[in-house]
Amino acid sequence: MMERALPEEVVEIARDIKDMRIRGAGRIARAAARALSMAVEKYSGDDLEDFRRYIGFVAEYLVKTRPTAVSLPNAVSFVVNPFFKARDLKSVQEARRMLLERASAFIKYSEDALERIAEIGSRLVQDGDNILTHCNSEAVASIIRRAIREGKNIKVFATETRPLYQGHITARMLLDAGADITLIPDSSIRSIIRRIDKVIVGADTVTANGAVVNKIGTSLIALIAHERRTDFYVATETYKFSPYTVWGEPVVIEERAPTEVASQEFLDKHPKLKILNPSFDVTPSSYITGIITEIGLIPPNAALLVLEEVYGREAGHEPIQGLDEGEV
Amino acid sequence: MMERALPEEVVEIARDIKDMRIRGAGRIARAAARALSMAVEKYSGDDLEDFRRYIGFVAEYLVKTRPTAVSLPNAVSFVVNPFFKARDLKSVQEARRMLLERASAFIKYSEDALERIAEIGSRLVQDGDNILTHCNSEAVASIIRRAIREGKNIKVFATETRPLYQGHITARMLLDAGADITLIPDSSIRSIIRRIDKVIVGADTVTANGAVVNKIGTSLIALIAHERRTDFYVATETYKFSPYTVWGEPVVIEERAPTEVASQEFLDKHPKLKILNPSFDVTPSSYITGIITEIGLIPPNAALLVLEEVYGREAGHEPIQGLDEGEV
Amino acid sequence: MMERALPEEVVEIARDIKDMRIRGAGRIARAAARALSMAVEKYSGDDLEDFRRYIGFVAEYLVKTRPTAVSLPNAVSFVVNPFFKARDLKSVQEARRMLLERASAFIKYSEDALERIAEIGSRLVQDGDNILTHCNSEAVASIIRRAIREGKNIKVFATETRPLYQGHITARMLLDAGADITLIPDSSIRSIIRRIDKVIVGADTVTANGAVVNKIGTSLIALIAHERRTDFYVATETYKFSPYTVWGEPVVIEERAPTEVASQEFLDKHPKLKILNPSFDVTPSSYITGIITEIGLIPPNAALLVLEEVYGREAGHEPIQGLDEGEV
Amino acid sequence: MMERALPEEVVEIARDIKDMRIRGAGRIARAAARALSMAVEKYSGDDLEDFRRYIGFVAEYLVKTRPTAVSLPNAVSFVVNPFFKARDLKSVQEARRMLLERASAFIKYSEDALERIAEIGSRLVQDGDNILTHCNSEAVASIIRRAIREGKNIKVFATETRPLYQGHITARMLLDAGADITLIPDSSIRSIIRRIDKVIVGADTVTANGAVVNKIGTSLIALIAHERRTDFYVATETYKFSPYTVWGEPVVIEERAPTEVASQEFLDKHPKLKILNPSFDVTPSSYITGIITEIGLIPPNAALLVLEEVYGREAGHEPIQGLDEGEV
Amino acid sequence: MMERALPEEVVEIARDIKDMRIRGAGRIARAAARALSMAVEKYSGDDLEDFRRYIGFVAEYLVKTRPTAVSLPNAVSFVVNPFFKARDLKSVQEARRMLLERASAFIKYSEDALERIAEIGSRLVQDGDNILTHCNSEAVASIIRRAIREGKNIKVFATETRPLYQGHITARMLLDAGADITLIPDSSIRSIIRRIDKVIVGADTVTANGAVVNKIGTSLIALIAHERRTDFYVATETYKFSPYTVWGEPVVIEERAPTEVASQEFLDKHPKLKILNPSFDVTPSSYITGIITEIGLIPPNAALLVLEEVYGREAGHEPIQGLDEGEV
Amino acid sequence: MMERALPEEVVEIARDIKDMRIRGAGRIARAAARALSMAVEKYSGDDLEDFRRYIGFVAEYLVKTRPTAVSLPNAVSFVVNPFFKARDLKSVQEARRMLLERASAFIKYSEDALERIAEIGSRLVQDGDNILTHCNSEAVASIIRRAIREGKNIKVFATETRPLYQGHITARMLLDAGADITLIPDSSIRSIIRRIDKVIVGADTVTANGAVVNKIGTSLIALIAHERRTDFYVATETYKFSPYTVWGEPVVIEERAPTEVASQEFLDKHPKLKILNPSFDVTPSSYITGIITEIGLIPPNAALLVLEEVYGREAGHEPIQGLDEGEV
Repeated sequence: MMERALPEEVVEIARDIKDMRIRGAGRIARAAARALSMAVEKYSGDDLEDFRRYIGFVAEYLVKTRPTAVSLPNAVSFVVNPFFKARDLKSVQEARRMLLERASAFIKYSEDALERIAEIGSRLVQDGDNILTHCNSEAVASIIRRAIREGKNIKVFATETRPLYQGHITARMLLDAGADITLIPDSSIRSIIRRIDKVIVGADTVTANGAVVNKIGTSLIALIAHERRTDFYVATETYKFSPYTVWGEPVVIEERAPTEVASQEFLDKHPKLKILNPSFDVTPSSYITGIITEIGLIPPNAALLVLEEVYGREAGHEPIQGLDEGEV
Repeated sequence: MMERALPEEVVEIARDIKDMRIRGAGRIARAAARALSMAVEKYSGDDLEDFRRYIGFVAEYLVKTRPTAVSLPNAVSFVVNPFFKARDLKSVQEARRMLLERASAFIKYSEDALERIAEIGSRLVQDGDNILTHCNSEAVASIIRRAIREGKNIKVFATETRPLYQGHITARMLLDAGADITLIPDSSIRSIIRRIDKVIVGADTVTANGAVVNKIGTSLIALIAHERRTDFYVATETYKFSPYTVWGEPVVIEERAPTEVASQEFLDKHPKLKILNPSFDVTPSSYITGIITEIGLIPPNAALLVLEEVYGREAGHEPIQGLDEGEV
Repeated sequence: MMERALPEEVVEIARDIKDMRIRGAGRIARAAARALSMAVEKYSGDDLEDFRRYIGFVAEYLVKTRPTAVSLPNAVSFVVNPFFKARDLKSVQEARRMLLERASAFIKYSEDALERIAEIGSRLVQDGDNILTHCNSEAVASIIRRAIREGKNIKVFATETRPLYQGHITARMLLDAGADITLIPDSSIRSIIRRIDKVIVGADTVTANGAVVNKIGTSLIALIAHERRTDFYVATETYKFSPYTVWGEPVVIEERAPTEVASQEFLDKHPKLKILNPSFDVTPSSYITGIITEIGLIPPNAALLVLEEVYGREAGHEPIQGLDEGEV
Repeated sequence: MMERALPEEVVEIARDIKDMRIRGAGRIARAAARALSMAVEKYSGDDLEDFRRYIGFVAEYLVKTRPTAVSLPNAVSFVVNPFFKARDLKSVQEARRMLLERASAFIKYSEDALERIAEIGSRLVQDGDNILTHCNSEAVASIIRRAIREGKNIKVFATETRPLYQGHITARMLLDAGADITLIPDSSIRSIIRRIDKVIVGADTVTANGAVVNKIGTSLIALIAHERRTDFYVATETYKFSPYTVWGEPVVIEERAPTEVASQEFLDKHPKLKILNPSFDVTPSSYITGIITEIGLIPPNAALLVLEEVYGREAGHEPIQGLDEGEV
Repeated sequence: MMERALPEEVVEIARDIKDMRIRGAGRIARAAARALSMAVEKYSGDDLEDFRRYIGFVAEYLVKTRPTAVSLPNAVSFVVNPFFKARDLKSVQEARRMLLERASAFIKYSEDALERIAEIGSRLVQDGDNILTHCNSEAVASIIRRAIREGKNIKVFATETRPLYQGHITARMLLDAGADITLIPDSSIRSIIRRIDKVIVGADTVTANGAVVNKIGTSLIALIAHERRTDFYVATETYKFSPYTVWGEPVVIEERAPTEVASQEFLDKHPKLKILNPSFDVTPSSYITGIITEIGLIPPNAALLVLEEVYGREAGHEPIQGLDEGEV
Repeated sequence: MMERALPEEVVEIARDIKDMRIRGAGRIARAAARALSMAVEKYSGDDLEDFRRYIGFVAEYLVKTRPTAVSLPNAVSFVVNPFFKARDLKSVQEARRMLLERASAFIKYSEDALERIAEIGSRLVQDGDNILTHCNSEAVASIIRRAIREGKNIKVFATETRPLYQGHITARMLLDAGADITLIPDSSIRSIIRRIDKVIVGADTVTANGAVVNKIGTSLIALIAHERRTDFYVATETYKFSPYTVWGEPVVIEERAPTEVASQEFLDKHPKLKILNPSFDVTPSSYITGIITEIGLIPPNAALLVLEEVYGREAGHEPIQGLDEGEV
């Protein structure tokens, strides 16, 4: 089966994820659920076996767009696994209904989770706090918006987040929400940390041993916060916890294009110049005060417990069902 | 006395220092010595008292261009103090000769010091080493060039050094010297540190307790190197050691323009957005393996000993002579 | 409903808790259970709805006496929640029986827990050990008494525990039990720590991330023990684990009267003098070797696991049932 | 009942364990299961009560051969507990079948576990890695063999492991498997650690709070790895997790003969010379990156969770059933 | 020679030092210089040899009053050593003049030193700072008074300093100087440290390796400040640096009366109760940011350099001259 | 000039140094001084220039025998430099006298230094102390012998010190001195450290930044002592301080024969087995409490100060005079 056999809408979403027009692990996960819905709706046949192969192919296709964020396979598994496990489906019609329900259930869960995180997270924010954040996280933004709505007088410091300057997006979003916000270069964090009461960042992936994979620079802020015993929180939905890491699967760190770091012109002029541009880094659990999830404020050392509760003991062993069938 | 009374060349050098067209503590110091020479040459009177006031004014004018770098008052003191202390000068002519000699002696000392630093520093670099540097330091560049000339096969990693991207200058300079060089975003240091054998950076000011004031981000690299027990060296001439700090004088950290961090357009669009842009940070002595100076490889805890040897016990107490007289 | 409508015995217990005549999280919890029994016994009506409101009011009244100790709401929930959840109660009579049973079950559990803690804790104490304790903890005393009964030759060091000198009570209690005991000022701990083999202290509250809230000074001893890698144990019943912290609820630290720190005379003479007198502090999990509970020796990082086992996942979300109904 | 009443094969295995001819917690555990099988097979009576006493005696006899390794009581419990708990056994015949099945199930489980550990562990090993190991561990050897079979180009550094030089055995085993191996004195680890990417060692016992008891010197390597933030993994089957430590039971560290450290001749010549020769040491959880088990890569802080999953909450409280009955 | 042979004024000063009516290393040192003056004035003989023995005896008598504070032998040496070394004294008259001059020179030096320390120290204090101090130090008080006089708006936190509550004296002194002051129990420091910008304490003795001996509890505050990277300064005259420690002489820590810790009544009631009451503790140099002395802001690691500058290389070897002669 | 032209006694001493029959930096230094004396005595010519070349050659020959210990060039410089610098020598006779005097002055200095170190070091040892040492150090042995002679009741723990078991020599030496001594495997230090009050080891080289180069394993003990804040002292004469390190000269770590680690038989049987056997390691200054030298107890951070006092600022720049002339 070839890519062009896929509905155009699905291909488009996949490209937007790949090229980071859709960005942030939560938005990516919901986009994947939406793409699956579209794929289901666009399917016109009535052969259940063919539908199975088709969905398997779509699932695999979506999972491959970004290597680091585990929210992608978690969202896809959430939607398609019950379908692949169901042994008593009788028609494509019935299968469609099941998949559409799962896709919208995921989106609903994801939106509710953000609200729950905002509720728990804002309890941790106190009137007068100075908060530092990095990159651009939906979960963090929802916490800060809620704290402001609750009348808490806070100041937010946002790193610019080289190379893609997502800190500018954060600044805009939070200015709109009425926040008092200060933009700082990434390298000035250690000079600014004295004024900070709490650091709150998002996550792309949480591993079984409570390490957090997030935008490059995160682990560095965590280290600096640890040096001065400043609280460092991660805000994230549980679908960013990776069941695969329980089985030793390493998290692949995406290496992005050199042109994000230096202009094409500069690179052309200096052909021998090398660039390293890793997109994420890994913060060890010992530098993290707590992980704010929709199911509670979790100490990072309890990540394995969360994984077992949410996914079950064997989840990471279980590939996304149907993927093998989907490959052609 | 007014600024416009100063020779145009002096004013120009002062502006170039202020606007960072002349950059780096060593270059600034030599430029100040040159400016003093020019001021001396342009002076046409023959009243020794008037000349004294004039030189005092020029000295003070130069010292005020940049607040953080101590190389500036150290260079100016080196040139003018013997003149102000000399009690037996008989003519402007004699005074001029003395000042011109001191100015060129300083420049010579400064150039020899770089060579001596290169010699000592390159002994610390071993074949096969991966070296990380930050910003753009003459002293570091001279060490790396010498190590390459000695046939050592090394790799250099340079941070881009936001907000002014001095890492691009370092990259160009070292590519010209034939170095294998990789440019990285500032925020990726903790991801890259595993590959690094030694960090070598420059300094703007070294304090009496062995702390090093250098380009924003330096202390952050030092912390990361310390976390993994990677050697962290500072390469600097002794005229960046501050005798003023012996007497409790704090080092003023320059806060530079917001437009270095975000575009004027972005700032205009978001008038409530604040920016912090401190130009330097402070690395504590406990994170520094050694300071490579022209008088030897100094443990940072021996900074006070160096200050006493180079400047004498009371240097920091002694203002730049003649400044008060120069003020009008 | 007004306070004076409450049975006098209940009001008295509540006052004794508030004024610290009843002190220590375990004694407070058992007193609350006793107060609930009394409230039940004194109730003379037969309208189940009215009884519900009455019990809700008593429960809330008791919970508010001391803000920090979670043993209070945990004890009250243990007694009243099954009553509020029971949908098939037919008479006040039946409801009373249920509440009285729960109250005495709690007291029994609490007493058995102390014995179990003594049994586990004394296994950790070795012949010849020097043990440091702080403040006055029932659980710690029960461990030391048992270790002495088992013939272990130990020395106990007790801090005086300013401002209320609970160390004097500990000294008396353990002298009675035949212990070799030395009283020391709080500020001498770092001088004494070399001789100490193990620190054992009690707890007021254990949070979801394994932090321990206990008498002011505890976290300071923990830090000192950590500095020298001396074992630091906390002995506590599981009803001091706080399910509310799972949901981000911060632990309120009680600020007590200035007269506990300086005499009224001194305060009158110096009306501008301010006093800070926080009653508790927070010890992070990374400074704690283990928590000795009645269900085993728990690593502090497993606090969330304990909370889930003992209270269930959602406990902290669930307010004490009936509180809203009780409010008038 | 006396030792000589035991089948000779059982006595022999017990001696081999005691004298370290059978060495390594896994081999010891399987040998104990085999010894139980043999004891079952050699029993010729048909009185179920007598058989019960006999098996109880054998179990206790085996458990006492080595004090530190918990794999021994865990293996014995695995085999005999279902038998002692079974209330409906009707004949010695039936009991024998049950015991033989459990014994071979244990051996099978143990062998499968090694494979699973190799599978998970080798995912953590990357092409080009330098790996340091200590002593001689089956689990580590299985990981390294698998990584080599998968074509990974790795270098292994093995400590000689005084006093018994088990590093020589490791060297031989891995040379046979085609590894590139370097032998180093124990005291040179800190000099060698710069070249190491990962440390992997085995375990004798894992405690409830995630500490690892292993061959003397292990905790020292862990400390050195921690000093430089080098990953430190422990590879071990879950039957080395000790349920007894949940209840405060300390792990006894075996003190072995002075002649392992100095020759009899040297000792005779210097009768006043004392020798200390502890066989194991304890590595705290904070120095351990992860524990590679057959049920996943476990953060050391989740040891209690593993114990509950594998053995159940109360396991450590429950003595090996029948032991009391077995004692005569 | 017997004590009663001494002038009553000298005996009185000695007793006031011993019983801590004269307290603080600076006041003790000046009192000793005054006592020597008095001893000189009261001497009525004219035999130079007898005078020598007399002064030797007085010197030794004074030195023995308090074991820990090195300011005592340093002050005494300052006054008497030139006298004992002088080989050309011709009369008791001449000797008296010399000793009186040295005594008043010492007192003058000590007072000037305080002013110099205030000048340097107040440069380190910034407008808006929260400062924590411990016990009651002249040097610290002089810094804070000066900072207030310079118009800096600061808040001071003073520990009560058990067992003798010197914090009450500090509070009174600084309230008189117009300070905003908060008194806190010693055990609450770790709870209060978040608000503190700088800690400044005094010293009794500074050792050759930069450790500071000061009132019990000081090292504990230093540890807490270090934990959060809060600046920790020591303010002290150089005559508290101990030249004896260069030669390995340990600093004796004074153990004071149990009645300072518990009332006589309590002790009588509990005759088996032991009390430990060490008066000082030792803060290691690695926890100290800088030592503010009259000759500059000294990094603690430069203590040896200061000792050599102030006392000369061999000072610590040289006993207080004449002591042996003085002993009878 | 060829080796066989050298007096046999000189060649023999050189071989004994090389093959470690003469061992320990102090003994090596004195042996070198003795060898120079012999070379002087055996010289029979009367041409001063030839004598100069001859002494230059002998000096270089001796310096090359062992690469790590700086005591060798320091001893040789001490003896020969005044000779090479003397511009007014008139005869070989006069030169011989000078050299013989310097050689015996060095030996005398070295012996006196040991006594002085014993005196200072034993002040640090307190009655009841448990002391750990490593390898075999003259300076440490002299301290312990003196402490025992002073009646201090101490226990000594000596590591066996693989691969050459110098701990056996230490054990014998100290048993002869009446010490209570326990021998332990190197790998058991972390298990034993709880009982230790002070670690005292020797040194081969002390660098300008206070790092200590000593027998492999030393830095590991230092790290373990640091982990528990146990005092770690180095006892060494100042002629082991290296003036060359001031100029960036790295200390070369000697790699010794594989047969010291494994038997020739084992190596022959496993030809692919590699061995690493570095003879020394480097302990950073931050893990060292103090360096006990003949000129006082020096904080490691003052090493540069010691170097300047003992050798002068430029010593390390100055090659051993005459070496170039000596080369043929």
